[in-house]
Amino acid sequence: MLAELWNLFLLFFLIQGFCPDLIACRTVPASELSLKLDESLPLLWPQPMEFRHGNETLSVDPKLEFRVVGAGSNSSILAEALERYRGIVFRHRTKSSPRPTFDLGRLTIVVSSDSEELQLGVDESYTLFVAGRNPLSIVAEATIEANTIYGAIRGLETFSQLCSFNFKTKEVQVHKAPWYINDKPRFTFRGLLIDTSRHYLPVNVIKQVIDSMSYAKLNVLHWHIIDEQAFPLEVPSYPDLWNGSYTKWERYTIEDAYDLVEYAKRRGVNIMPEIDVPGHAESWGIGYPDLWPSPICREPLDVSQEFTFSVISGILQDMHNIFPFELFHLGGDEVNTECWSSTIHVKQWLENKNMTEKDGYQYFVLRAQQIAAAQNRTPVNWEETFNIFGDKLHPQTVVHNWWGPGVCPKVVAKGLRCIMSNQGQWYLDHLDVPWEDFYISEPLEGIVDPSQQELVIGGEVCMWGETADTSDIQQTIWPRAAAAAERLWSPRAATTGGDLNAIVLPRLEYFRCLLNRRGVAAAPVTNSLARKPPIGPGSCFVQ
Amino acid sequence: MLAELWNLFLLFFLIQGFCPDLIACRTVPASELSLKLDESLPLLWPQPMEFRHGNETLSVDPKLEFRVVGAGSNSSILAEALERYRGIVFRHRTKSSPRPTFDLGRLTIVVSSDSEELQLGVDESYTLFVAGRNPLSIVAEATIEANTIYGAIRGLETFSQLCSFNFKTKEVQVHKAPWYINDKPRFTFRGLLIDTSRHYLPVNVIKQVIDSMSYAKLNVLHWHIIDEQAFPLEVPSYPDLWNGSYTKWERYTIEDAYDLVEYAKRRGVNIMPEIDVPGHAESWGIGYPDLWPSPICREPLDVSQEFTFSVISGILQDMHNIFPFELFHLGGDEVNTECWSSTIHVKQWLENKNMTEKDGYQYFVLRAQQIAAAQNRTPVNWEETFNIFGDKLHPQTVVHNWWGPGVCPKVVAKGLRCIMSNQGQWYLDHLDVPWEDFYISEPLEGIVDPSQQELVIGGEVCMWGETADTSDIQQTIWPRAAAAAERLWSPRAATTGGDLNAIVLPRLEYFRCLLNRRGVAAAPVTNSLARKPPIGPGSCFVQ
Repeated sequence: MLAELWNLFLLFFLIQGFCPDLIACRTVPASELSLKLDESLPLLWPQPMEFRHGNETLSVDPKLEFRVVGAGSNSSILAEALERYRGIVFRHRTKSSPRPTFDLGRLTIVVSSDSEELQLGVDESYTLFVAGRNPLSIVAEATIEANTIYGAIRGLETFSQLCSFNFKTKEVQVHKAPWYINDKPRFTFRGLLIDTSRHYLPVNVIKQVIDSMSYAKLNVLHWHIIDEQAFPLEVPSYPDLWNGSYTKWERYTIEDAYDLVEYAKRRGVNIMPEIDVPGHAESWGIGYPDLWPSPICREPLDVSQEFTFSVISGILQDMHNIFPFELFHLGGDEVNTECWSSTIHVKQWLENKNMTEKDGYQYFVLRAQQIAAAQNRTPVNWEETFNIFGDKLHPQTVVHNWWGPGVCPKVVAKGLRCIMSNQGQWYLDHLDVPWEDFYISEPLEGIVDPSQQELVIGGEVCMWGETADTSDIQQTIWPRAAAAAERLWSPRAATTGGDLNAIVLPRLEYFRCLLNRRGVAAAPVTNSLARKPPIGPGSCFVQ
Repeated sequence: MLAELWNLFLLFFLIQGFCPDLIACRTVPASELSLKLDESLPLLWPQPMEFRHGNETLSVDPKLEFRVVGAGSNSSILAEALERYRGIVFRHRTKSSPRPTFDLGRLTIVVSSDSEELQLGVDESYTLFVAGRNPLSIVAEATIEANTIYGAIRGLETFSQLCSFNFKTKEVQVHKAPWYINDKPRFTFRGLLIDTSRHYLPVNVIKQVIDSMSYAKLNVLHWHIIDEQAFPLEVPSYPDLWNGSYTKWERYTIEDAYDLVEYAKRRGVNIMPEIDVPGHAESWGIGYPDLWPSPICREPLDVSQEFTFSVISGILQDMHNIFPFELFHLGGDEVNTECWSSTIHVKQWLENKNMTEKDGYQYFVLRAQQIAAAQNRTPVNWEETFNIFGDKLHPQTVVHNWWGPGVCPKVVAKGLRCIMSNQGQWYLDHLDVPWEDFYISEPLEGIVDPSQQELVIGGEVCMWGETADTSDIQQTIWPRAAAAAERLWSPRAATTGGDLNAIVLPRLEYFRCLLNRRGVAAAPVTNSLARKPPIGPGSCFVQ
């Protein structure tokens, strides 16, 4: 039934996908006459699970009343979100003498739970109803119903996308009302990785990234804090660790980290920290050289020293209160263990334990997992750990795919959970991967058994930082991350098949321009390489 | 005397320009060990006219009191600026239990004028005094004295740059106190051009640009609103003009324009609008095709119709209240008049008037100037108008150089005022022009007579929009615009001579990172081409 409804809608898009409005479509040079968008289309991104709409246009009162009802109505997070979205919806100044009455005067938000806890799997569902004009009442009504404030925040985002500014009447309008939307995410984990070791990202910039994530309903910021190049985070129990930062100004205090976690939470975004061990950790030894096998052979961390695990334990303890998210990423990727054999005391230790280098790698990862588990954190590890000793991993492990396709099917067949980040499709630093490849990348590819499908908790796009700093991170992330965001949020049937250029591209271009309007530097959608500047003058909607 | 003081300071920079602090300088890969910055240097951008400092470090109370004194103390613009800078200075959360006393507890701002008027030549001077610890008083004092609120706002920017966050003590500190700064701009016009015709820039994005301008003490946003590609601005008296916008969403209402002017004013930035006639105006005819010579020959505007000048007059009348800035840019560049001869009715009109095409061009520009002058606006025109009929221009005309060097000397020799934007050095869309060329571009080059020098009101960097949209405008503007900003603000002697890489580059890299910290996507300073991403991992301060 739902599938039929979708087919009907897709057909509707195709038929309506031409511009009936000369003004909306014209551009001066004939070469640019390709804009096929019409405001009356349901230009929502990501597409809701289920929606119906009519054909009315409603004007929205610039003094729109927010009425908050239910056990969640006292939430300061919700109150702040309402004011944030008021600013987004009513971006343009209106005339000094607006008309006296508007169609839509009130938005009621019903939240049934009083819990503000944000965790993996928190209920993000909502319904949004925007009523048409009713002869029996003075104004039309809009209502968001959600079980949690986080569902309400997702509903507010959708409501804000239904609202558009009419430059002629100078009113905010909702087209195609009445609307009935019933929505919830397909996957519980919809992530974006940022890398603050290859380039330090100021706190303000990370906040900008979090803002933009919430517009696409992404909900996990995977913070790859530390790598071999720099250790920017304060660790009170080992205060010299952040001597490994690039400079004394390119650092995060624990207060900064708390600030970011709270900022993200207020937008329904979890922060999953990563401490990537034992490789990708050279910078640790700037503060504590004993963590290196030797001053001339610095990676991976010295497996033979108890001190190494004391430091890991200290870091995790210090981070426990800062990052309440259940998942904790322990890395484990790209470990070249040659240093262990070429450094005498480590080689001796391995021999004493009757271990190969590979055994040492396994020993290291499993000890780190135990440290995390002892603190009630669920370990996440990159796929090499599974590929090499998958049957030894902690049974709660979430395996993070990155190298290539076909990993999650093997992971879930072993009963472990999986996150997909196939580098050929979801690595944002691969500038030659176009938006279509991000869009068609399917986390459940090759997994048929429903109980195994449930073990794929979602996916993540990765913004590795070798060539991404404050100057170019947003346009490298957007708009391609949005393509993955729809894949992760919307029903599989709605995001599969059909002519992407006809069905999806116009909506994605509209969403890119929406990001631009909100101040996010999302790049042109159809450029040959990501983050390329526009090739010439033209409308945002066709570049 | 002042020059000697400067030489002393420059010598001081050279001697001190190495890093005494291992932590501040280290980076992991040896290839990056080039950071020579030390926080104790006076890392101010642009350099103040005159400054002295000591050697103390003062801690700043996170509850810093702002005391506002004088006739300007009731200004809401000033009050808003104070809160803005509080947010900038105290960006990082502090610990929950900070120490009980701080060295600097109060900033007094004395503003002697109660006028909030912002115009060309408004007094932007200020003094800033940050006292050292005094055994006779409990706290140190900081004082900004200015004649106008705009001078005070410049002083606040400088104060914010003196403040830096110490990640170890988790305090905001002022190094090298006490400070005495006596400052005012060298030129009254320090501009940046944006182009909203080649690409529409959302209101939010223009506000981001205005924010960033204020950090570099630029004070004129030259808004090249309309060009041949698109006409995005509402003109109430000719309501079909903005039919020439790309889409019905890529427009500015007059309320948007008011909003931008007020937003800019609150940061001490004037907006100078440009209506570029008679060339660069094809988009006008989408709404009113009679403005074209013919549907097949559309530029320049039809010189033979009175309607053309009625429309220009209507636009200027509608814009008069929106843009209070005295200067109004009428364009006049790159006019190819062939259409006038190839269109029969225009050719006939020229013949009847006994005019050549060139005469028609002059006639058009001068009539537009008269329309502006009749509304008490000072006309600004691109240099072609001066080059071709300079002696006929309105005597108040400000000539805007762009084509090449040596124009301003000729302009001021004729007694007209001049703005320098030499494309080889100050066009931001010329991506191959490095920061050094922006820095050494001297508006008074070739002008010796002091009375002629005074006719150069300043300069402007131009961000033409063919390949600059929301996704890349900030990193194309910054950091190179900052190089010009210092040239336009700081004394000529302070910005001339010496090894730029030793004296200027470290400060510019510091300023680029300051912009990044404030959320501005300023690009790496030393890349081969502007707005290129960083070429590899590394510190912001050396890229």
